[in-house]
Amino acid sequence: MTTPVDSSAVVDLLGALAYAELTAFDRLAEDARLAPTLTGRAALARMAAAEITHHVQLTDRLAELGVDPAVAMTPFVPALDAFHESTRPSTWLEGLVKAYVGDGLATDFYREIAAFLPDPDRALVLDVLADTGHADFAVREVRAAVKADRKVPGRLSLWGRRLVGEAMSQSQAVIAEHDRLAELIIAGTGDIRGVALLIERITSAHTKRMKALGLNP
Amino acid sequence: MTTPVDSSAVVDLLGALAYAELTAFDRLAEDARLAPTLTGRAALARMAAAEITHHVQLTDRLAELGVDPAVAMTPFVPALDAFHESTRPSTWLEGLVKAYVGDGLATDFYREIAAFLPDPDRALVLDVLADTGHADFAVREVRAAVKADRKVPGRLSLWGRRLVGEAMSQSQAVIAEHDRLAELIIAGTGDIRGVALLIERITSAHTKRMKALGLNP
Repeated sequence: MTTPVDSSAVVDLLGALAYAELTAFDRLAEDARLAPTLTGRAALARMAAAEITHHVQLTDRLAELGVDPAVAMTPFVPALDAFHESTRPSTWLEGLVKAYVGDGLATDFYREIAAFLPDPDRALVLDVLADTGHADFAVREVRAAVKADRKVPGRLSLWGRRLVGEAMSQSQAVIAEHDRLAELIIAGTGDIRGVALLIERITSAHTKRMKALGLNP
Repeated sequence: MTTPVDSSAVVDLLGALAYAELTAFDRLAEDARLAPTLTGRAALARMAAAEITHHVQLTDRLAELGVDPAVAMTPFVPALDAFHESTRPSTWLEGLVKAYVGDGLATDFYREIAAFLPDPDRALVLDVLADTGHADFAVREVRAAVKADRKVPGRLSLWGRRLVGEAMSQSQAVIAEHDRLAELIIAGTGDIRGVALLIERITSAHTKRMKALGLNP
């Protein structure tokens, strides 16, 4: 293989993503309990189960590379747990916004980095990140609530901004602590300007999602 | 269709099973957090996700029959929630025994009743209940713990007996409140002796599972 990508950076990315999926499962399952209806609870449970399918694809690949998935995931536990601890939804609507906006942010971020990977890992990550369509439910519910109660948009817009702030600060912490990931991003984007453009793409997609929910980005 | 089975009994059974899968998901996801390792946590999360796959198959079938899945599930919420409330694991090992023994009991019970259904519902329920092999992990972990600590078998054996007691008492309550289910079981087994034999088959399979874990039934 002539690619310049350090294979340990691949393991880092797969490990981070595998733990991100496991912990997203955990929190979606927890937030499902806030659902006011059985239909809503089942919808969030389905989103949670989809994360586990992805998690399994990633840990299978790690095992294939001869790496213990638990070992690859462990370095990313503190930052991802800290993100979820600091963004624990207190209402069903906050849970839905987090499911849609938080998942969208994470997906965009990992998709950007996956573009720098050699195949088959690039294809695997892009496949895992493909939209499962479960988000439609969250969008529909939040839009309906935003239309029904004038106090809802302001509160949920603030919540969305908090989510993006915490996500950015935790990703910066992870990258600062993992030289190989930082090198992968710098090499992939070309230079600091490339990094700035990457962040610009991620925040602009976030803005679109907030608007889709009827919220102020 | 010449079968004597009341189609509303089919809806009852599919509804009960769909909610059983949803709530099993919920509790397995919760118990996954008791895991001492990432590997254990991921194993229980996979078991939880498998329940959702089953849940979706059942709710799809209910929708096909023109029944709102939430409406079909609702009558079974109190009994199934009561079962889980009264059997909340306080340790990781109790969680594993519940995942294996509780899931086994429920599977046997639904499989017995499915035998009385006409196709395609019989085939669907049997397919949903097919062993997904995830239980191997629970058996391995519990057996290792039983061998490592002499105090473990006594405690977990008591726990297993409590699980079967609560399961029996909640199923009796459900059947007593749902005439159509009760009629389905009596008609299917032939008579009261048939019901006794059904219970005998379920408890004897439970005994085998307890022994597989190294516990006293």
